[in-house]
Amino acid sequence: MNLPDLTFGQYQLVYNMLSLAIAAMLGSFIFFVVGRNLLAYKFRPAMIMASLVVGIAGYHYWRIFNSWSDAYTLIEGTYVASGVPFNDAYRYVDWLLTVPLLVAELVAVLTLAKKQRVSLTARLVVASSLMVALGYPGELAAEQGTRILFGALSCIPFAYILSILWRELSDTIADQAPEVQYLIGKTRMLLVATWLFYPVAFVMPLTGFSGASTTVGLQVGYSLADIAAKCAYGLMIYSIARAKMEAENLSAEALPVPVGQVA
Amino acid sequence: MNLPDLTFGQYQLVYNMLSLAIAAMLGSFIFFVVGRNLLAYKFRPAMIMASLVVGIAGYHYWRIFNSWSDAYTLIEGTYVASGVPFNDAYRYVDWLLTVPLLVAELVAVLTLAKKQRVSLTARLVVASSLMVALGYPGELAAEQGTRILFGALSCIPFAYILSILWRELSDTIADQAPEVQYLIGKTRMLLVATWLFYPVAFVMPLTGFSGASTTVGLQVGYSLADIAAKCAYGLMIYSIARAKMEAENLSAEALPVPVGQVA
Repeated sequence: MNLPDLTFGQYQLVYNMLSLAIAAMLGSFIFFVVGRNLLAYKFRPAMIMASLVVGIAGYHYWRIFNSWSDAYTLIEGTYVASGVPFNDAYRYVDWLLTVPLLVAELVAVLTLAKKQRVSLTARLVVASSLMVALGYPGELAAEQGTRILFGALSCIPFAYILSILWRELSDTIADQAPEVQYLIGKTRMLLVATWLFYPVAFVMPLTGFSGASTTVGLQVGYSLADIAAKCAYGLMIYSIARAKMEAENLSAEALPVPVGQVA
Repeated sequence: MNLPDLTFGQYQLVYNMLSLAIAAMLGSFIFFVVGRNLLAYKFRPAMIMASLVVGIAGYHYWRIFNSWSDAYTLIEGTYVASGVPFNDAYRYVDWLLTVPLLVAELVAVLTLAKKQRVSLTARLVVASSLMVALGYPGELAAEQGTRILFGALSCIPFAYILSILWRELSDTIADQAPEVQYLIGKTRMLLVATWLFYPVAFVMPLTGFSGASTTVGLQVGYSLADIAAKCAYGLMIYSIARAKMEAENLSAEALPVPVGQVA
């Protein structure tokens, strides 16, 4: 990727947004780790997954932040490429680990019967891993045709995930309390709405848009999308757990049920 | 921002104050995380928020400290600007995350009925986010008029927060134990008194004050204001929880009540 020259304000905006992402991931990590003890036992696996997601993402944002600092040098008031490449591929490594965890987190908080939970989790994890893995060769491709091909292939598991989340999940949660169903609906929307940023970023190089504003817009967009998809999403998962505790009249110390059974 | 030349003592004072802030945030973080277990369950969410605030602020002070070190170089006994910009905008990023948490923390420790708690928290969080977000364009503005305009706009949500904290909150806590009411009053004063430093720092560039003493004074003032507003404030929240435990004859192990109910 060729790095365009940036004004002081443009460079700083990306710098501060990457740092905001680190701080948001760190804060969420503390909350998910410490706050899980405010939940009944059966909801804690979901919060542990949420903490893994933001812990891993915080590490990657720290790397991306350092890479961004190294990639530019300030010469007479303008930031120009220093010659050190900006490594953005961390993002795919991050998604490969965090995206399957995000979908597993949503299933975990529903505390379904074991058979149903395992089946849903397995299919969502495989589909979301495929979705990320198929995007990667397209991202690296020099030719437009290859980029389009892998982008299209990546849409197949994405469509499958949508069908599970909207058709299968709706049937599954039909007997939950209205407040819980409402929150699950919002969380599902948040997940998919934030995911829509990634294909937009993916097709950007095909549109002819490039230069400083595109580079800055992509990094700012990625940061905000990740904060929404990981931190805000984890908070929604926490809210679902709280709403279920209220509906089922459970307290934080409710004795754990034996593994495989459902309270 | 043009960085003035600093004497050895001036540079070291800022350096040591920034490091003091890091140490204070870290120490408070440990206390809030570990010490929350000395409180009854219903007060722990407030301490978790307090730990997020100082965790996030500690991260930002570490960044500001590094930026300060990089921004100066020692030449013949005088610290002069190295050419690397001093990034102070971290402060706004920090406030955007921590200020809403600070007001939410105060509501959380009151353990109000759910409806009242949600309404108060939502309005305080939105108002405090707006207050910080409106300050940012003013801080970056090159023209005085823009700085004054956004500074004035930022005062509107600030006035709203004051009216909630003094009028609405006073009614809300009228039935609490006298010791608890006394501590809540002090905590509210601490919050607003420390916040008064920020508008002073904001208008400083308009007053014609500049140069070494102003730069040093601002950084020292910010550090002390943040230690008071985050660490000392969190300790006050802890004291309120202890006073309420005493008034309600609760122990740290008191069984949590089901979510949504109020003890």
